Amino acid sequence: MSDVEFYAARMDRAVRSAVQEGLAGLVVTPGPDLVWLCGYAPPAVTERLTALLLVPGSRPQLLVPQLERADAERAPGAGALTVSGWTDGEDPYAEVAKVLAGQGRYGVSDNAWALHLLALQRKRPEAGFGALTEALPMLRAVKDAYELERLTAAGAAADAAFEAIVELPFAGRREHEVAADLDRLLRENGHEQVDFTIVGSGPNGADPHHEAGERVIEDGDMVVMDFGGLKGGYGSDTTRTVHVGEPSPEERKVHDLVREAQQAAFEAVRPGVACQDVDRAARQVIRRAGYGEYFVHRTGHGIGVTTHEPPYMVEGEHLPLVPGMCFSVEPGVYLPGRFGVRIEDIVVCTETGGRRLNNTARELRVVA
Amino acid sequence: MSDVEFYAARMDRAVRSAVQEGLAGLVVTPGPDLVWLCGYAPPAVTERLTALLLVPGSRPQLLVPQLERADAERAPGAGALTVSGWTDGEDPYAEVAKVLAGQGRYGVSDNAWALHLLALQRKRPEAGFGALTEALPMLRAVKDAYELERLTAAGAAADAAFEAIVELPFAGRREHEVAADLDRLLRENGHEQVDFTIVGSGPNGADPHHEAGERVIEDGDMVVMDFGGLKGGYGSDTTRTVHVGEPSPEERKVHDLVREAQQAAFEAVRPGVACQDVDRAARQVIRRAGYGEYFVHRTGHGIGVTTHEPPYMVEGEHLPLVPGMCFSVEPGVYLPGRFGVRIEDIVVCTETGGRRLNNTARELRVVA
Repeated sequence: MSDVEFYAARMDRAVRSAVQEGLAGLVVTPGPDLVWLCGYAPPAVTERLTALLLVPGSRPQLLVPQLERADAERAPGAGALTVSGWTDGEDPYAEVAKVLAGQGRYGVSDNAWALHLLALQRKRPEAGFGALTEALPMLRAVKDAYELERLTAAGAAADAAFEAIVELPFAGRREHEVAADLDRLLRENGHEQVDFTIVGSGPNGADPHHEAGERVIEDGDMVVMDFGGLKGGYGSDTTRTVHVGEPSPEERKVHDLVREAQQAAFEAVRPGVACQDVDRAARQVIRRAGYGEYFVHRTGHGIGVTTHEPPYMVEGEHLPLVPGMCFSVEPGVYLPGRFGVRIEDIVVCTETGGRRLNNTARELRVVA
Repeated sequence: MSDVEFYAARMDRAVRSAVQEGLAGLVVTPGPDLVWLCGYAPPAVTERLTALLLVPGSRPQLLVPQLERADAERAPGAGALTVSGWTDGEDPYAEVAKVLAGQGRYGVSDNAWALHLLALQRKRPEAGFGALTEALPMLRAVKDAYELERLTAAGAAADAAFEAIVELPFAGRREHEVAADLDRLLRENGHEQVDFTIVGSGPNGADPHHEAGERVIEDGDMVVMDFGGLKGGYGSDTTRTVHVGEPSPEERKVHDLVREAQQAAFEAVRPGVACQDVDRAARQVIRRAGYGEYFVHRTGHGIGVTTHEPPYMVEGEHLPLVPGMCFSVEPGVYLPGRFGVRIEDIVVCTETGGRRLNNTARELRVVA
């Protein structure tokens, strides 16, 4: 399949999904949806409108600032689009309004600027607008074979980074030094972008949002490492918790508990199961052990051309899993002021159950 | 003045401006407005709502995901705020709706996500929303003495980078090598962030949006260099066009024309003049010389905590200039397939006229 056919098929699938959900069309602005649909990322996101307009029965139209037209025409999916440029002083919203001539409701990118949405609402007061991931949460959620291949490769690269980092010394180094090594290792293993390299040692590991700081890692510390980014345009995201020197019985117990919870959530993955049931499977294990109040976040999130997208494994999310969905499974226990444990793999839902894209050992690893 | 007083005064000024414009309050999401108002930049911009809520008669409130609360409480302006956290599963928009209890119209950050705006519109269907720069285009446009000092320093640093780059060889090197040198020189001169380093040689210079490519610069090329970023939190943005070896009479003529147009626009700057008149001053010079069709963009844009913001020097912009406004003056002529010329300075409007923050020579410089 050529690039043009590939992106044409994606855009066609998006329009058909939109129609099925009762939408009159889609307005897609720069960001992961635009990259996914037509391969285009503008040189910068500014107040000048760039929008891909998808309506049934018409060729997809990409409206860009005239100055960026040459960039847009080089996008891999440009051959499946009508690219048109608007010049400073012209009203790009009037152009959009011409294309969105139908009655009804349009889906608009979650991250479209309010400036643009408000201008469209003024131009088309009778039209409705809804956020794309709310209207079509499944649009990018189900990955095809090409995407799963990329996600598998990104996961393997993150695993290789983990296997290399645990060979390096921990005790006596600052968290941000280990984080810098993780960044380097991800890049050495083919990542073109690193989104996060969390290193939370000792009490810092008990703050699930801690990044990496000045703290010097000591013998006896638990260390949570959560790292990922993009390789070949697709995301990695994995967490392992290691221990500097021999762990205490309590540290082993909490780590075993999180591992058991992660395994339970993984085993809950199969087509038709609601996302919230993956969360519940992990939470139930932790709650029954008396640590429920220390598991303070959802169990997972989707991953694809971003490291953070629908579907979310969270209470209240009733979406059923579908083969091809790809998401993190990452329960944790955080004991304030003491230590934290999180274990995270990317998991793809297959016809027969879950398949992990991270495959380093989940047993508590002792580092130096 | 302490940080807290400094940011409290800015937020107070914003609320008073909002009330003057008939707004009931402001909803500010992550980005330059949030940094400017309270000094807070969240670790990442995600689908989880972060919003600063400013309404008359109440202490400013910053609503953040609970996981990021500690980050928010470390912001320099946090002491002037009530910081509150919301947890996954809670409805942050209900919290916002409680604060935006007034009737009327609210200003919302230009770059607020559509996802958030649409949720607020559902929660408060009777409220109106308008884009912040449309409702309060002047909010960040008029710089105080502190800001002008920073902008002046950023301009001087960019000038130093230019003086250094022209001492290096051009002929025989690729555009992206020169661009990498510009990046390094901006950083060596105190920039913590580089936003763009455009190097357009020969025919590439005729594409005003060309960045920097594989083309090897040759003797006889015109080379447009447009570069800038942030130093001390404030922006630089300057353009000079140089020539490798001796220019032809036509190249000199076009460069002189652009220099004359830039000078005319600069001289048009004074309090009370409409922004569009600055554009017209440059355009008239170029048009009269018969090159009107080759000046394909607006004459300028504001600069401050971003390198690109209101006010815009463009036809149709009737806003009058006010002392303290700071913006680019950057006419250009682009001869497709041949070469381009652009000359850009940052200019501040003072009581008595314009003052340039870039002061390297505007005559055509010959490089090696």
